[in-house]
Amino acid sequence: MARTLWIDAMGVLRTIDQTLLPFEVREIALASPAACAEAIRTMRVRGAPLIGAVGAYGLALALRADPSDDALEKAFDELLATRPTAVNLRWALERVREHVAGMPPAGRAAAAWAECAAICDEDVACNRAIGEHAARLLLAAREAAGERSVNILTHCNAGAIATIDEGTALAAVYRLHRDGVPIHVWVDETRPRNQGASLTTWELTQRGVPHTLVADNAGGLLMQRGLVDAVLVGCDRVAANGDVVNKIGTYLKALAARDADVPFFVACPLSSIDPRAPDGAAVEIEYRDPVEVTHVQGLDESTRAMRSVRIAPEGTAALNPGFDVTPARLVTALVTEKGVAAASREGVASLLAPADAGVD
Amino acid sequence: MARTLWIDAMGVLRTIDQTLLPFEVREIALASPAACAEAIRTMRVRGAPLIGAVGAYGLALALRADPSDDALEKAFDELLATRPTAVNLRWALERVREHVAGMPPAGRAAAAWAECAAICDEDVACNRAIGEHAARLLLAAREAAGERSVNILTHCNAGAIATIDEGTALAAVYRLHRDGVPIHVWVDETRPRNQGASLTTWELTQRGVPHTLVADNAGGLLMQRGLVDAVLVGCDRVAANGDVVNKIGTYLKALAARDADVPFFVACPLSSIDPRAPDGAAVEIEYRDPVEVTHVQGLDESTRAMRSVRIAPEGTAALNPGFDVTPARLVTALVTEKGVAAASREGVASLLAPADAGVD
Repeated sequence: MARTLWIDAMGVLRTIDQTLLPFEVREIALASPAACAEAIRTMRVRGAPLIGAVGAYGLALALRADPSDDALEKAFDELLATRPTAVNLRWALERVREHVAGMPPAGRAAAAWAECAAICDEDVACNRAIGEHAARLLLAAREAAGERSVNILTHCNAGAIATIDEGTALAAVYRLHRDGVPIHVWVDETRPRNQGASLTTWELTQRGVPHTLVADNAGGLLMQRGLVDAVLVGCDRVAANGDVVNKIGTYLKALAARDADVPFFVACPLSSIDPRAPDGAAVEIEYRDPVEVTHVQGLDESTRAMRSVRIAPEGTAALNPGFDVTPARLVTALVTEKGVAAASREGVASLLAPADAGVD
Repeated sequence: MARTLWIDAMGVLRTIDQTLLPFEVREIALASPAACAEAIRTMRVRGAPLIGAVGAYGLALALRADPSDDALEKAFDELLATRPTAVNLRWALERVREHVAGMPPAGRAAAAWAECAAICDEDVACNRAIGEHAARLLLAAREAAGERSVNILTHCNAGAIATIDEGTALAAVYRLHRDGVPIHVWVDETRPRNQGASLTTWELTQRGVPHTLVADNAGGLLMQRGLVDAVLVGCDRVAANGDVVNKIGTYLKALAARDADVPFFVACPLSSIDPRAPDGAAVEIEYRDPVEVTHVQGLDESTRAMRSVRIAPEGTAALNPGFDVTPARLVTALVTEKGVAAASREGVASLLAPADAGVD
């Protein structure tokens, strides 16, 4: 499996246009800061870690054209404004800016480009580590449920294509699958943009992981009936108190998990933690175009072309919040590259403490 | 506004094909038991009370062709098998069967037909009464929230077209709207069949009630942010202990309502109560065709034709449960034509007690 973001033989940054998945795998070039910003804004690339990496490359590309402080700040602001909720974007932009800040302009572009490559390499290693830690939790959850496949429910796509590779939540699934542990994933459709139906199913199919698509509404029944060993999701931002901001609908699954005594795990790279946000209520929730609710995009099987169909009457207004807040009290554990921690002020603080302060 | 089910000048039973709403209002004839069964099975008619009425007419039509006991039982069984979850179907079929059981065959068809008309008339009166009772609860909920529009969240369609007229849950909305009370409805899309997006929005538009469509995933955030005064839904079956079986996803909204301290009301005609089901777990949950999850039907705006688009990769399996169980403990009140009762064994028993036993 190739990485989600790569440099081609001509030195051009490339990715795949995720708005066309699962029906077409089209490579696109990200050859300018504007192309990076457009790809993030229109969700050709999405997923908190991938947004961060593409944003960082956008900044590096801007420095190629103009390495001045002014240009740096302008590009920083433009890229940061593309999407407000996932904190990885700000984290990656700040990392690149800080890396080049003290340098003479002539060396900045190359240094920034190298830093972006480091961000990408570290992302893959980070996700593998998250996968190791989360896999242990999933095996323990299966233990509790008796001898059979591990049954995971996931929401949205926190998989390889939400990151550079491996995924955050799905890293554990891939790890267990590689180890020969029978595993089955309940995939939430994830309206309104259907990232579960179109992206997670595609990834799992490619990697041969058994899975079943369900409407977002079905998860409560599945948990009531004992068909889910653990819920495992990614996150767009974790606040200092452990509140988890993730794709709209995550909170409802956390409530159902608690009600059915199913563990609810959040795969959370340290770059998704925002100590500046005291709690989830302090995080800006992105509101997207209502057309994503009133229309659905899919494949017209008669023409094999992508098509959008309207599902609501003309004149009906729609509201389209992209994220919600899962209160820390509903989260069984945060799973990071550094280990497992409680979703609490103390747990988050321990994750952000120096490396030898001891987590998990 | 016309009734959902009516007899035309030729004496033929007619309805509208709800699978084409909101984009086409096409009348269809239900001229045989087979037509009634097909309409129920394919959801051209849906909604627990409407299914009951159409089933009853199916039985009456069967008796026109053959009024024998054998024919009666055969038609009864065939109609009952069309959909398993809503108990109103069984209730209406049993009512008609009981009504004609002692009669000589020659008079059965006419008597059954008259009984169906009575079922329809009573449904409208029942819903008006539910609307009166629920409207009082909604005004009290608004009171608690301060002076502004009453903000209701509803799931699926428990409106006029789920019944003969008025609706169960929406009866209260229409009552307040007619009384000039400002009211706004958050309409859950209700995947996978989108009854909220296609039916509830259509009804509310026709009657001029302000509303906003949201993805099923959004309700938790709306409640967290104080934007919902009450959740108001219908039901397909209420068990003897007060558990509510309703459209898949209802349970998730009940959990969110409880977590945000928002009242959760269930509009429940007595015909939806099943004293033979001790609890929700005893009720058969209908599983429908996975194609409803992997595909979405809507309007192709370029051709103005209805079209189905595939949203998941070929080869991805889907599971499509139609209903879930909201435990009685999450239900603030059952609202019936007889008054308001607690969702508990005692509350349900009081509703089923003789008329003067005193409820609300």
